[in-house]
Amino acid sequence: MNQYAMHHVVDSSYCFPISPNEIVLRLRAARGDLVRAQVIYESKYTIGLTQKSADMRCAYRTELYDFFEVTLKLEDTRLGYVFYVNDGIDNYYFSEDGVTKTYNFALGFYNFFQYPYINEADIMECVPWMKKAVFYQIFVDRFCMGDSKKDTSYINTAWGEVPSPKSFCGGDIKGILTKLDYLQALGINAIYLTPVFSSISNHKYDISDYYQVDRQFGTNKDLLDLVEAAHARGMKIILDAVFNHCSDRLMQFQDVIAKGCKSEYYDWFVVYGDEISPECDNYETFASCKYMPKFNTSNAQVEQFLLDIATYYIKEYDIDGWRLDVSDEISHSFWRKFRQTVKGIKKDAVIIGENWHDANSNLRGDQYDSIMNYAFTKACLDYFATECIDSEGLAWKLNGLLMRNTDIVNSMMLNLLDSHDTHRFFKEVNEEEWKMKAALALLYLFRGAPCIFYGTEISIWGGYDPDCRRCMDWNVAGENGKYSHLWKLLTTLAQIRQTYDLAEGVQRIYAQKGIFYLENTTKQGTVLLCINPTKEDVRDEERIISAKSFCVEINGGVMIDG
Amino acid sequence: MNQYAMHHVVDSSYCFPISPNEIVLRLRAARGDLVRAQVIYESKYTIGLTQKSADMRCAYRTELYDFFEVTLKLEDTRLGYVFYVNDGIDNYYFSEDGVTKTYNFALGFYNFFQYPYINEADIMECVPWMKKAVFYQIFVDRFCMGDSKKDTSYINTAWGEVPSPKSFCGGDIKGILTKLDYLQALGINAIYLTPVFSSISNHKYDISDYYQVDRQFGTNKDLLDLVEAAHARGMKIILDAVFNHCSDRLMQFQDVIAKGCKSEYYDWFVVYGDEISPECDNYETFASCKYMPKFNTSNAQVEQFLLDIATYYIKEYDIDGWRLDVSDEISHSFWRKFRQTVKGIKKDAVIIGENWHDANSNLRGDQYDSIMNYAFTKACLDYFATECIDSEGLAWKLNGLLMRNTDIVNSMMLNLLDSHDTHRFFKEVNEEEWKMKAALALLYLFRGAPCIFYGTEISIWGGYDPDCRRCMDWNVAGENGKYSHLWKLLTTLAQIRQTYDLAEGVQRIYAQKGIFYLENTTKQGTVLLCINPTKEDVRDEERIISAKSFCVEINGGVMIDG
Repeated sequence: MNQYAMHHVVDSSYCFPISPNEIVLRLRAARGDLVRAQVIYESKYTIGLTQKSADMRCAYRTELYDFFEVTLKLEDTRLGYVFYVNDGIDNYYFSEDGVTKTYNFALGFYNFFQYPYINEADIMECVPWMKKAVFYQIFVDRFCMGDSKKDTSYINTAWGEVPSPKSFCGGDIKGILTKLDYLQALGINAIYLTPVFSSISNHKYDISDYYQVDRQFGTNKDLLDLVEAAHARGMKIILDAVFNHCSDRLMQFQDVIAKGCKSEYYDWFVVYGDEISPECDNYETFASCKYMPKFNTSNAQVEQFLLDIATYYIKEYDIDGWRLDVSDEISHSFWRKFRQTVKGIKKDAVIIGENWHDANSNLRGDQYDSIMNYAFTKACLDYFATECIDSEGLAWKLNGLLMRNTDIVNSMMLNLLDSHDTHRFFKEVNEEEWKMKAALALLYLFRGAPCIFYGTEISIWGGYDPDCRRCMDWNVAGENGKYSHLWKLLTTLAQIRQTYDLAEGVQRIYAQKGIFYLENTTKQGTVLLCINPTKEDVRDEERIISAKSFCVEINGGVMIDG
Repeated sequence: MNQYAMHHVVDSSYCFPISPNEIVLRLRAARGDLVRAQVIYESKYTIGLTQKSADMRCAYRTELYDFFEVTLKLEDTRLGYVFYVNDGIDNYYFSEDGVTKTYNFALGFYNFFQYPYINEADIMECVPWMKKAVFYQIFVDRFCMGDSKKDTSYINTAWGEVPSPKSFCGGDIKGILTKLDYLQALGINAIYLTPVFSSISNHKYDISDYYQVDRQFGTNKDLLDLVEAAHARGMKIILDAVFNHCSDRLMQFQDVIAKGCKSEYYDWFVVYGDEISPECDNYETFASCKYMPKFNTSNAQVEQFLLDIATYYIKEYDIDGWRLDVSDEISHSFWRKFRQTVKGIKKDAVIIGENWHDANSNLRGDQYDSIMNYAFTKACLDYFATECIDSEGLAWKLNGLLMRNTDIVNSMMLNLLDSHDTHRFFKEVNEEEWKMKAALALLYLFRGAPCIFYGTEISIWGGYDPDCRRCMDWNVAGENGKYSHLWKLLTTLAQIRQTYDLAEGVQRIYAQKGIFYLENTTKQGTVLLCINPTKEDVRDEERIISAKSFCVEINGGVMIDG
């Protein structure tokens, strides 16, 4: 019995309520160590006298650990519990006091695990539409130019030319509007726009007026029209909340430049000294970008300024949520207020952080709903691109990622292969088409919401920023275009997501004989993804999977073969 | 190298800021497994290019694990880091991806550990006075009767008689007022009162009017006088916030009894059905006590009602904090608002939860400051009373408890040997005086604030409630009374707490040759507690410790011998 591996944390991703009388418990043990795991439980007020027990199933396996899981339906939600496990040789209890051969329930009030009471206010809820969401990320300047009448003098790069960091290509909101039918046909039902507010850059992550759509991108009315048109199609729109920092052209920062510590906005930023130095090296910024001064979100006025912005676009434009730029560098205390404010106005607005790392401390129900799942990206890169892990390694990694957070959070994860901040995945896999397709199948079928970066459907290629931000090529796009095979794949995958309740089924991820399996058992049927990255055809009990290929089966019948 | 034991969690008790540019990192490994642990770190924006490193010291040891710790002083607080360890044979990296032989810093942005930025709003602060606090818990009805003119007709048990569950003995707030000099002489500088508001019980945990001091205990003016008199002596007063439930006599619950679901207060409670049943078995209560209906703290009006009470006694009576009754059964969401409200009015008011179990999810800086440390109680019982652990076991347990939370929380823990909810510790140790004294020395010298239950200083004996709530015997109390040896011990220990900054020193807890050592290295000198629970005298390098005895040494000189 490997005591070192045994792990459980109350009121965490190991123990969380999913309804007023249901709770999920997870127990970690060394991989293969336990032949049986049970939970012994009862109301914490009576567990000293009588106990119930329930078997736990080994639901997730990682390189080092097995994770056992059970959902308990409770009459009295004041839950006390200890685990009771068998390693094939002996039985053990596992409580707050660790692993023991015996356990005294009469004194359990000192050291059983407990979830003291399920308060409805503490039950995190899944934003309902996220369960079926298929996202499309648009970098606005490069997607589509719709307003031919606008002042185009700012455009310095022809559509289709390889962009430089300072390229302006002319994409705008009207362009997106004209492509809603296209996106809907592709199976997209949610759009995430990189920033659209006033800014001198092409990416617009340096905002100088949060209440004004940048005129390169159109008008505030265009934004309103876009949301309305999207909603008319049942599509959602989320915007990019750049709240960590702003442009040095923001009026408030300009005031600090002018007046130094005498400015009423001096404390809005983190300035070392009474004045902004001529070299602009004495204030906190995003990364090392002097033109992006960091907000001091510990300042109450800044908090209110940003909360007002968040509120405004939900109330006045009816947007469906916010993606939070550099959210990990902003205080928890701010995000708590942000969630209260946003959910107070629109309960099913989604809040998606940009944290590249384990963000559990932001995902406990009081701050974001989920994050951009770059750890999923990394697992895909390791498997498909650098091939430093095999199918078993991928299964282990993905199971490990699921164990970082609760099921509710996992169902709202924004899973992605690439974005405006990475190389294009298609480049990373050396343009190997079967890999790209298999990765997309994994993206769409893994727990959470898939998000494809614009142009994925036409195999846009590119390295790191600015290369990943090339213009959409509308000449080759569409169902009958050059990349019709990708169109077919993506629409089929999107259809599967609409037909099968993947967010609510049981997901099992494992590997055998070098094959990766992701199996979703849903009310509507079983959806199975098999990937064979090896150089050999592999025969398992049900099928032969060719070398370097994948397939998606529905209830045993092949739906996608690639 | 035992990979299973390796553990680190960002933004948790393993990783927490203590100032705008300092952060504490902890790393867990199997006990004895590592010969060296380092952290490799840098600004997360540049760690791909250059890295710093720092050695970590093995600061805490438990039965299974060693905990390594380091405090980093940062220029750029956007911290990325991985651990670099040696097990005597080989070197390993430990990152979000687990233990690896190599680590690619250039791709670290995907999987290094990170604390993305120290926001001042997220730094938990120690309530300054808690660092030197010595608490005395008073069960008001049994401590001292000061108002001889009051209507005493409710008193049904003579002072000193063994109490029954329904005994009323006459203790009151005026009585406490007359004993402030006594308490101060005993070294007490903080008093925790069990509830004092209107209630028909002797314990008053069933409150029918939160704005009225129970007339058995005196008047609201008496409470005001008590706080004022305490403050004049530099003493603090904290009250008991009974917010999980109330008395069935509370006006609002009476209204629900009368009007059922038509009552405007119907949703203040959790009632199953349209009416309160004649058997009173269809609403949520505290434990199974029908006379204590549970509040629905998910209701916004209830929240405000309770927050107003919390506010009132701080604003109008200037109390110094709240102990939170049955706090674990109330929502996190409520306690977040409670903290914001309370700290908004009085920043150094302390918030102490009643959680008998690991309460980490309440102790992350957004809810309580600390809890009543019943896990410390249990460790002391295991060591001194049931003797199911030896000195090494005690050291391991106490180190384990310290690792549950941050240093800041640990410094504010309300440590206790017993309370109105347990047997008297003196009974638990079978009235063995050396054990009682050694336990008190441990209580006073362990990280956190000691809290003694009234009468500890005169060896009040008793079993579980109501037996632990016997009357104070003033005939034997005091410096020159029958228990002068306890008086001397407690005053000496209190003096040590005032002289030495125990909250800020380095604490080391370990065992050797059957001896338990607790060593505080402070700016003012070293305070060492040695306990020998064995039947043999033990000679260590510095001293001989007699069988069944303990000593406290200051800078090597014996201060207490018992």
